[in-house]
Amino acid sequence: MARYVVDVMPKPEILDPQGKAVLGALPRLGFAGVTDVRQGKRFELEIEGDATDEALAEVQKMAGTLLSNPVIEDFAVHVESQA
Amino acid sequence: MARYVVDVMPKPEILDPQGKAVLGALPRLGFAGVTDVRQGKRFELEIEGDATDEALAEVQKMAGTLLSNPVIEDFAVHVESQA
Repeated sequence: MARYVVDVMPKPEILDPQGKAVLGALPRLGFAGVTDVRQGKRFELEIEGDATDEALAEVQKMAGTLLSNPVIEDFAVHVESQA
Repeated sequence: MARYVVDVMPKPEILDPQGKAVLGALPRLGFAGVTDVRQGKRFELEIEGDATDEALAEVQKMAGTLLSNPVIEDFAVHVESQA
């Protein structure tokens, strides 16, 4: 069993209203010095078998087709742990 | 300027309907072998100044008060890069 992590973030040129809302709320809560916030998604997938290059390629495909919208989002995949 | 990442995930004992929806959709798209999916949030914060222990403690506070709901979510904070 191996755990993979897929991080999905809005592309830099895409507006991110959720991140902007957090950025606006921080000073009201007394936090200073934050110049930008981007909000994205994190998926943790448990997959049978060992962490192989083939399994990682499968996760890349899942990330590109189901977990992210490639028009507006970038994703990054990595193996987190293996048990 | 330093970039901090806050990963927010539903606690293990909390139901995660978004993750379950992804888990149900994967076989229909031809992906086999995935036994569990959890969906959470990822925040990237740009903060003025160098990455210090004080700044990291501030980000921990932001994560615990604004970015996560500590009743149902766990969070992890790390420094991603420094420029």
